[in-house]
Amino acid sequence: MATGTRIKTDEGQGRPTLALGDLYAPIATELADAERIFQEELSSRFPFVQHLVDHCADFQGKRLRPALVLLTARACGSVTPSHSVLAAVVEMIHTATLVHDDILDEAMVRRHAATVNAEWGNETAVLLGDYLFTHAFHLAASLDSTRACRWIGEATNRVCEGEMQQVHHRGNLDLDEASYFAIIEGKTAELTAVSCRLGASYAGASDATVAAMDRYGRELGIAFQIADDVLDIWGEERVTGKSLGTDLEKQKLTLPMIYLLRMVEPDVAAEIRRLLDEAHADHRRLIRPHLERTGAIDRAWQKAKLHVKQALDALDVLPDSDARSLLRILAQYVVRRSS
Amino acid sequence: MATGTRIKTDEGQGRPTLALGDLYAPIATELADAERIFQEELSSRFPFVQHLVDHCADFQGKRLRPALVLLTARACGSVTPSHSVLAAVVEMIHTATLVHDDILDEAMVRRHAATVNAEWGNETAVLLGDYLFTHAFHLAASLDSTRACRWIGEATNRVCEGEMQQVHHRGNLDLDEASYFAIIEGKTAELTAVSCRLGASYAGASDATVAAMDRYGRELGIAFQIADDVLDIWGEERVTGKSLGTDLEKQKLTLPMIYLLRMVEPDVAAEIRRLLDEAHADHRRLIRPHLERTGAIDRAWQKAKLHVKQALDALDVLPDSDARSLLRILAQYVVRRSS
Repeated sequence: MATGTRIKTDEGQGRPTLALGDLYAPIATELADAERIFQEELSSRFPFVQHLVDHCADFQGKRLRPALVLLTARACGSVTPSHSVLAAVVEMIHTATLVHDDILDEAMVRRHAATVNAEWGNETAVLLGDYLFTHAFHLAASLDSTRACRWIGEATNRVCEGEMQQVHHRGNLDLDEASYFAIIEGKTAELTAVSCRLGASYAGASDATVAAMDRYGRELGIAFQIADDVLDIWGEERVTGKSLGTDLEKQKLTLPMIYLLRMVEPDVAAEIRRLLDEAHADHRRLIRPHLERTGAIDRAWQKAKLHVKQALDALDVLPDSDARSLLRILAQYVVRRSS
Repeated sequence: MATGTRIKTDEGQGRPTLALGDLYAPIATELADAERIFQEELSSRFPFVQHLVDHCADFQGKRLRPALVLLTARACGSVTPSHSVLAAVVEMIHTATLVHDDILDEAMVRRHAATVNAEWGNETAVLLGDYLFTHAFHLAASLDSTRACRWIGEATNRVCEGEMQQVHHRGNLDLDEASYFAIIEGKTAELTAVSCRLGASYAGASDATVAAMDRYGRELGIAFQIADDVLDIWGEERVTGKSLGTDLEKQKLTLPMIYLLRMVEPDVAAEIRRLLDEAHADHRRLIRPHLERTGAIDRAWQKAKLHVKQALDALDVLPDSDARSLLRILAQYVVRRSS
C-alpha cells in the first residue's frame, strides 16, 4: 500500500497517530479540485456575500464527506471529474447545515472561529445557509443527468426531517433510544450515506456495490454522530475548537444521557432531569460524576464501535485495494477522534 | 376570449374587480395538479413535520408564480404534466423564502395566520424553510433533464444574494435607487422571471420567445415588489392580512422612502432619518404626512407602472391568444392589488 508507511496506528493506545492529511494523500489532487470548485461556485460579485463565503470556507475541517465520495470512487473503480464536483456539493450541503445548526444551538465558536450568527447575526446566517443549499443544488445540476440532484435532494430532505425531529424532541427528557437513532440517521447518516453512494455509482459500480457503499456510509455516519454527541458532553473545547455542552443546555438528549437515565436509580434519574431543567446550571460538570460512575459514556462508545464494525463489514463486497484500506481506517478514525 | 365575460375591470376606478380565481380559471386543473404535487412531495411520516407542512400550505395566496408557469406555457404552446411539477416547485421555493423572511422580519402574521416563527420559534422556521428548499430541488430533479434544476438553482442563488444585500443595507439610510433595484431584482424578480422562462421553455418555445418571457416575468416581479413595498408603508393590515410597517421598523429603505428623502428639504430629510433611527416610534403614522405632501408614494406607483408597461411590451412577441390576454391582465393586476 503506497501510503502504508505514513499511516501508523498506535494499537496499544487505541488511537491513530495519523493526521487526516496523511489519510487523504491518495486523493489530495481531487480534494484540491473540489476545494477550487467549492470556491468558484460560491463566488459573488457582492463584496459582503464574498466575505461571508470566505469566512465559512474556514469551517471546513475534516472534509469527511468529500473524502468519502473520492475514496469510495477509488475503491469501486476510478475517480472522474464528476467526483470532484460531487465532493464539492456534499461539502456545501454540510456547510449549509453547520451554518444553520449554529443558529439553532446559539453556538458562538466553530473551528476556533466565530460562527456566522455570532459575527453577523441570525438573519445573515439564515440567508448564507440558504445560499449554500441553493448553490449545492445548482452545482449538482451541472452534471450530465438528474441522478445526483435526485439523490442529494432525497438525502437532504431526510437531513431536514431529522433536524426537525430533534428540535421537536428538545426538552423531552424521556427520549428513547429508537427516536434518538431516527434523528441521527436523518441528520447525519443520510449525508455520509449519499456521499458514498454517489462515489460508487459515478465510478460505475454495480447496484449491489452501490448499496453496500450506502450501508458503509450510513453506519459510519451513525458512529460519527454518537462520537460527536459523546464529545459534546465529555470533550474539551480547547481541543475540539467548538462550543461544547450545547446539547445539555438545549435539553437535547443524546445517547450517553439516554443510557445514563436508564442505568441510574429512579431518584437519581429524577434529580438529573431536574438539573437539566435548570437554565444556568453547569450541566457538564454536575453530570460528569454520574456518567463516570455508571459507565454510560463507555457504553455509548461501545455502541459507536458496533456501528463501525457494521461499516467495515459492508466493505467486504469490495476487492482488496489501498482505497478500501483507507476506508477501513477512516471508519475506525471517526470513533477515535478528539475533535 | 373564453373567459372574457367573467373578467371585468373597472377602468374608471383603475382597479380590477376580478378575483384571481377568475383569472386562473383556464388553468384551474393544472393549478389543482400543482397543489396536489406540492402536498405529496412534502408529506412526512413524522406527525410534527406534517403538521408544519399543513400549516404553511395555508400561506399560499395569490399563487402568482405557479400561475406564471402555467399561463406562459399556454401562451407559448401547450401545458404539459411537467408544467404542473414546475408550478409546484416554484411555489415551494417561494414558500421557503416566505418562511425564512418571516424570521428576518420578526413577522407574526402571514395571510391572517401565525407565522411559523411566531408559533413554533425561529429554530423550527429555519428547518422548515430548508425542508421546503430541498424538496423543491428534489421535485425539480424528477423531470427528464437537469435544465429545471440548473435554472432554478441559478435563480435561487440570486434570490439569496438579493436577500443578503438587503440585510447588509439595513440601517443604511442613504441607500440609493440602483442598490434598491439590485436587491429587488434578486429577491423577487429572479423567481418570477424563471417561472415564465420555465413555462415557455417546457412548452417548446424558441430561444427568443423564452428570453422575452423571462423579461416579462422580471419586469412583472419588479413592479410587484415595488407595489409590495408601497403597501408595507401605505396599506392596511386588516386588508393585506400580514404584518405591515416592518420595512420601516427594520430600517429597510424602499422606493417610496428613497424618493421621499430625495424630494424633501435637507433638514426634513435629517428629521426623517432621526425618526427612523428611533426604535419604538410609530414610523408609519409619523411619516405618512411627508409621503402625502411630496407625492413620493405616487411616484413609486408610477415607477411600478413603468415596469408593468415593459412587461406588457415583452408579450408582443407572442401571437394573440386568451392566455396572452390573461398575462396582460395579471401584469396590470400586481400594481392594483391591495393585498
